[in-house]
Amino acid sequence: MNTKDELFVKMVMNSWQATQKSINKNIEKLSEEELNTPLLPGKNTPAWIIGHLAAVNDNMATLLDLGPKLKPEYEKALIHPDGSVKPPPTVEMIKYWHDSNAYVNEKMASLSTADWFGKHTAVSAEDFAKEPHRNKLNVLISRTNHLSHHLGQLVLIKNKVDA
Amino acid sequence: MNTKDELFVKMVMNSWQATQKSINKNIEKLSEEELNTPLLPGKNTPAWIIGHLAAVNDNMATLLDLGPKLKPEYEKALIHPDGSVKPPPTVEMIKYWHDSNAYVNEKMASLSTADWFGKHTAVSAEDFAKEPHRNKLNVLISRTNHLSHHLGQLVLIKNKVDA
Repeated sequence: MNTKDELFVKMVMNSWQATQKSINKNIEKLSEEELNTPLLPGKNTPAWIIGHLAAVNDNMATLLDLGPKLKPEYEKALIHPDGSVKPPPTVEMIKYWHDSNAYVNEKMASLSTADWFGKHTAVSAEDFAKEPHRNKLNVLISRTNHLSHHLGQLVLIKNKVDA
Repeated sequence: MNTKDELFVKMVMNSWQATQKSINKNIEKLSEEELNTPLLPGKNTPAWIIGHLAAVNDNMATLLDLGPKLKPEYEKALIHPDGSVKPPPTVEMIKYWHDSNAYVNEKMASLSTADWFGKHTAVSAEDFAKEPHRNKLNVLISRTNHLSHHLGQLVLIKNKVDA
């Protein structure tokens, strides 16, 4: 085992977990009313953003070959909503966020360093041979940035309430 | 040279550069009025957020030992503003963003893979020996998440305008 490889995985996992924790802290601060009030008129609510992050976690379960999705039926409402499927109730979206975190975190803990540098399920073996950066760890870097993107929005909502 | 190390640097650099590009695309879309309108009443303007990201780039120049800051005089207005120093004009903050990107990107391109795994300037040699994940590359992972955090806010502003 190469210790540098282990170090990479630790750096990326630390960043992922720290961002999850920041989001959890923000969720705890939000009241029921704040959760259900759009950030700007006609825009997403914090509750929907949290449900969206949960659904993206769930997609990661299949992308990283960790196991089946917890709630495949939520994808249409929470990934690319076209209005045809109503999002679940707020309490269910928050539960989904916590459940999906626990699920992917537990499964990811069992991946070896070599697994992390292996291909994700959406890249072919041929393409992966040419582009070895398209590995599982790269997906986690990308998903951590995705969490940060929406954390920036959640923080703003709370700042609005504090002001 | 370990190719895994090079691969990891490439993954982190790709993520950094892609996020910079997304921010540039967003800046291009914003009108003068949009740049100077707070996201929410009493909150930061997109122009300030862009100046803030530039100042954080500039801090990274010293943290990664790339060279002196371009604009040390802007730190007080753009990192932890206490109201005592006025931010520069919008046009200057946008110029600062582009200049600071060009500056750190050029300097970073000259770092070797071994440099990236070396310590940043804010950690002691003793602590680094115990915590080797506190390297320069880890700073770049963290700063990419910081860009994403504020990109999430800039996107929202533009969405507001589009709606």
